[in-house]
Amino acid sequence: MSDPFRIVALLFPHVTQLDFTGPAQVFSKMPGAELHVAWHREEPVPTDAGFSILPTTTLEAAPQADVLFVPGGRGAFELLEDEVMLDFLRRQAAEARWITGVCTGSFLLGAAGLLRGRRATSHWGSLHLLERLGATPVAERVVRDDHVITAAGVSAGIDFALRLTAEIYGDDVAKRLQLQLEYDPEPPFDAGAPSRPDADDELANAQIASMTELRGDVVDRAAARLDAG
Amino acid sequence: MSDPFRIVALLFPHVTQLDFTGPAQVFSKMPGAELHVAWHREEPVPTDAGFSILPTTTLEAAPQADVLFVPGGRGAFELLEDEVMLDFLRRQAAEARWITGVCTGSFLLGAAGLLRGRRATSHWGSLHLLERLGATPVAERVVRDDHVITAAGVSAGIDFALRLTAEIYGDDVAKRLQLQLEYDPEPPFDAGAPSRPDADDELANAQIASMTELRGDVVDRAAARLDAG
Repeated sequence: MSDPFRIVALLFPHVTQLDFTGPAQVFSKMPGAELHVAWHREEPVPTDAGFSILPTTTLEAAPQADVLFVPGGRGAFELLEDEVMLDFLRRQAAEARWITGVCTGSFLLGAAGLLRGRRATSHWGSLHLLERLGATPVAERVVRDDHVITAAGVSAGIDFALRLTAEIYGDDVAKRLQLQLEYDPEPPFDAGAPSRPDADDELANAQIASMTELRGDVVDRAAARLDAG
Repeated sequence: MSDPFRIVALLFPHVTQLDFTGPAQVFSKMPGAELHVAWHREEPVPTDAGFSILPTTTLEAAPQADVLFVPGGRGAFELLEDEVMLDFLRRQAAEARWITGVCTGSFLLGAAGLLRGRRATSHWGSLHLLERLGATPVAERVVRDDHVITAAGVSAGIDFALRLTAEIYGDDVAKRLQLQLEYDPEPPFDAGAPSRPDADDELANAQIASMTELRGDVVDRAAARLDAG
């Protein structure tokens, strides 16, 4: 293991902040790990939740990652044609031990060509579109394909980060972090995925349709660039 | 319900950022709600995870809260004698519909005198100390005593915020937000609380002892101020 062990997370405007902050809580407690948070500029980045987070570095200055991490959110779809950012992902991914994403962060990995031929997941509302970027969409909470790990929507990032901890440091360290986070969830309803009994099917289907409408074109353009590249 | 419905969250240096960002994800999606993030100054606040968050307002300028929210973390124990901050909590609490805290944020509520005679919870490692501030410690994930709601450690904030959503907006809205967050947890181990089979008892007991050692004196001083106040 390199010393220090470096996690480099991409941050961007209109990120779904819990996609980033859930895993970041775990990353920051990994023994000997350093968390770097990168964006084009070291300026406050507005999240989807009405407050801003400060990056700690830039895409250009970020060190080589051991773990490359990409969160999602509405802002991810505004970046699918940002070649500087996509080059950053490709450059980092070439040497990273782990390539990881949560929620619709998988679309950024996909637009960078990093999911071609791989099993991967995303937020349930957009998962079906991931195929257009050459991935095999899998409706599971955390999906590992060799050194590429993706997680489902938003809160799935916590499960992902603990599983990654177990992969890197072993089960005992992961259990210790889980205890520290008091991660013993008691969701108030059984409504956390479209397949669950308390979930509103109609709402879920409407959102899946709306995501195709809203995001289908930009995903297709990103796919066309990939094929041409 | 006031329009807009205002949530005022306290932020402070060395906050355990997921205590704040977990609930904030839910708060920011409550229909018609506004999230305000307050600290002494509108300057970047360093979290426990190596990055900073920007407050959106100050203790002085924050609007009256409908929901007052206080996260925890190491930094909370550096504030137990900050009278300006404690006055802010008391002033807000006097008119708030809900007074809420996650993790060791309950110690700030307690130091402000807001938990006297109330059932309340906190992170398992510090829960036993809460009695010194006049509360009745309860080892449950989310504890409601009239309009005062507290949650256990770190990740318990997500369960808390969804339960609060159900209280304010009804079950259907809370289920919708839970689906949106894809909050269908799959913790990798059954290790999220000291009572769980995969949790390391020895480690848990050592931490409880160490918290008494580290935090007992400042909690006692806060209790003495309360009694004198």
